[in-house]
Amino acid sequence: MTFHQAEHPLLVIPGSIEVSDDVLLANATPSQSHMSKSFVQTFGETIKMFRQVLVTERGQPFIVAGSGTLGWDMVASNLTEPGDEALVLHSGYFGQSFADCLETYGAKVTQLKAPVGQCPSREELVQALKAKKYKIVTITHVDTSTGVLSNPQMISEVVHEISPDTLIVLDGVCSVGSEVIRMDEWSLDVVMCASQKGLGVPPGLSLVCASERAIRIVETRKTKINSYFASWLNWLPVMRGYEQGKPVYFATPPIQIICALHTSLKEITSRPIEERWARHKQASIDFKQFVTDELGLKQVPSDPSIAANGMTAIYFPDGLSASDIIPRLLERGIVVAGGLHKEIKDKYFRIGHMGITVMDTKTRNDLEKVKDALRNVFKEAGYVQYFLAKYFVKSISSKHMENENNTSASESSLPPLDEANRRKLHAFYSSMALPGSSPDDGLQSIDSDNVNCDVR
Amino acid sequence: MTFHQAEHPLLVIPGSIEVSDDVLLANATPSQSHMSKSFVQTFGETIKMFRQVLVTERGQPFIVAGSGTLGWDMVASNLTEPGDEALVLHSGYFGQSFADCLETYGAKVTQLKAPVGQCPSREELVQALKAKKYKIVTITHVDTSTGVLSNPQMISEVVHEISPDTLIVLDGVCSVGSEVIRMDEWSLDVVMCASQKGLGVPPGLSLVCASERAIRIVETRKTKINSYFASWLNWLPVMRGYEQGKPVYFATPPIQIICALHTSLKEITSRPIEERWARHKQASIDFKQFVTDELGLKQVPSDPSIAANGMTAIYFPDGLSASDIIPRLLERGIVVAGGLHKEIKDKYFRIGHMGITVMDTKTRNDLEKVKDALRNVFKEAGYVQYFLAKYFVKSISSKHMENENNTSASESSLPPLDEANRRKLHAFYSSMALPGSSPDDGLQSIDSDNVNCDVR
Repeated sequence: MTFHQAEHPLLVIPGSIEVSDDVLLANATPSQSHMSKSFVQTFGETIKMFRQVLVTERGQPFIVAGSGTLGWDMVASNLTEPGDEALVLHSGYFGQSFADCLETYGAKVTQLKAPVGQCPSREELVQALKAKKYKIVTITHVDTSTGVLSNPQMISEVVHEISPDTLIVLDGVCSVGSEVIRMDEWSLDVVMCASQKGLGVPPGLSLVCASERAIRIVETRKTKINSYFASWLNWLPVMRGYEQGKPVYFATPPIQIICALHTSLKEITSRPIEERWARHKQASIDFKQFVTDELGLKQVPSDPSIAANGMTAIYFPDGLSASDIIPRLLERGIVVAGGLHKEIKDKYFRIGHMGITVMDTKTRNDLEKVKDALRNVFKEAGYVQYFLAKYFVKSISSKHMENENNTSASESSLPPLDEANRRKLHAFYSSMALPGSSPDDGLQSIDSDNVNCDVR
Repeated sequence: MTFHQAEHPLLVIPGSIEVSDDVLLANATPSQSHMSKSFVQTFGETIKMFRQVLVTERGQPFIVAGSGTLGWDMVASNLTEPGDEALVLHSGYFGQSFADCLETYGAKVTQLKAPVGQCPSREELVQALKAKKYKIVTITHVDTSTGVLSNPQMISEVVHEISPDTLIVLDGVCSVGSEVIRMDEWSLDVVMCASQKGLGVPPGLSLVCASERAIRIVETRKTKINSYFASWLNWLPVMRGYEQGKPVYFATPPIQIICALHTSLKEITSRPIEERWARHKQASIDFKQFVTDELGLKQVPSDPSIAANGMTAIYFPDGLSASDIIPRLLERGIVVAGGLHKEIKDKYFRIGHMGITVMDTKTRNDLEKVKDALRNVFKEAGYVQYFLAKYFVKSISSKHMENENNTSASESSLPPLDEANRRKLHAFYSSMALPGSSPDDGLQSIDSDNVNCDVR
């Protein structure tokens, strides 16, 4: 059957993301028995392909009806026993929630909190690990609330060096499928995620992968696992069974969404995963360049090196807020997300660029649509300074080019920037000291070199 | 869009069940934000309609990505505190599992176990409630492993009389939408179910409804709730928010399957729920009559009054087993379920008749297809006695009719039953003492009156 999903606004929140027609059609697979040969094969292949995406040979996947949140319960209830020490590397909202979940199951949690837009440094981590022995350390790979990207490879190296028995848990809800993850090579003990982000499937699945070491810890723990639905011991026979072609019952698996995941994973694993990561990275670089250089806006992550590749978190310029921008984008058929981190909730918005929005440039044009809409919407919202800035930059550029090449630049037909506008522009840059920004951002000055470098 | 689901074998296991094209298409709803106006309205309406199905005005629904099993975790983690006493009324496999789940969260469980095919009696319940004070009592409304139907109304009356503070929990996984449930009138504190059975939606949702009393218990408990994902306190603002038109975030809701549930509930609530119950009951009576009278087979429930209306659990006749019947049904495009209850696992099979298989007799003909397939498959498997029996009955009947009306019955053209066949038939009935059957089943004799009464 040729299936085309209904027309709808373009969804570019940092998950759920747009999904392909094929994946949606698989989500409308007719009813079938969870014990049927066909479904057993589908589920078994899905388990294997999930391993491929995480670049692990020995990890044990758990694919269960739920949401990303359920993965925290799995980690907390299986890997910690009441009283165990846990270190949460906090880079936003989701670090706090993971900590809350761990405490629910009796773990004693220390949070290593970074200021908004940052993640804990290597030095802080070293210090924390030397101060106390932890059963587990958790990393939010991409904190969806801030768009901050942590460095699990570095963290894992530090942990293995200082505290080799500590289990390393990567919350990859907003990173699996869009950020580089090498589970075995980085010696991660758990990678957990959900279906609706980088994997390009509707929401409704919790996906977790546990290392052999993590499974041994569960099998040899002193106290009973204090959850039933989240217990890996209940799911282990199911996952192993389906992978070996034999259905085992614990709870009815969510057939249709597993079929959808199967379809998406087939597409994802049909090409080297490195290619997917590179495509996400390039799309992110392009989009962020547009946001900072063309729109003159500031990202929430304090440094480009810690900005996620699957999403962009952007501060509103002074004088504008969510209500100026988000409804206007919606009118143009573009759905973005508002703020989530409570310290800056009303001061920024978020755009996701994962999955087919990035990968399918043959039949889709998502990010160009988003850019066009942003250009128009900011203009409409009265962000005139942006246009002045752009004008100013172009004017400077064309002057530079004229000087250097002694030819007329393409923008040279622009009318000259008069003194009144120049003053407005200066005032605008002076007002750009945004929450968390440093005075070094180079936006306080209209020195033409700085402008060229930081604004365009 | 006109959407027709792909051709596929007819699924008549006791869940997952067949779902309509409309529901499947809703499960392929394009991506949308969980904060969007459209989804907020869909989810809000879904919550309200779920209440209608349970005939409750004040119950608090929780609709969460998961499976039916997660409902047990919700009950155990929210309503019991470690050390609390729980009484599990056990009518099959799922009573044991519910007990295991309660114990996981620290409850002290007493199981009131009935023999296979039965549920605990009123007298046993009275005795149990008088012997000990219980925080909660749990009922498996329909135990999917046996097809046994409990009587929650009677149980609730007894509990309210003897132990009015005890919370009453109905596991309605295999009953909501197909069996009579009046949550308010029967003063039930929790009704829990899943999406893939009587509600006619793909698997992937845990649906729970809690009484005001149950919510008060959660809000005033002494110890912290010992689950994060299953905690009602985490979900309460979400459910109340969406119902009031305001999205609240705890975990990403499974958009598509909630859209599918919305579509199914709209269809279900478009007619009085009593009509749906009656249709399921009549279909069940018809189908069971076919199984017992025409096929001459025996049900697992020991008495028709405790047989579910949404499914039928049937013993194989002596000499036949799952491998004789189930693959042959599959060859004919009919998918039934094998045994699940470990005491009788290989001795019976199960057929579901819920949702559109029962309700949509305009465009579907599911149960007639199932009957035809069963007739042919049992014949093919060598169950010749059945045909002899049928022949014999018809022969007797026509003789009766001839005597009474002095006219020739329609079957009178059948050739006479000879002595050899009559002997085979006698031997067959003599061999029909099936597991759990009583000598009073009337199948030991070929007395013509008995045959007329019990076999046809």
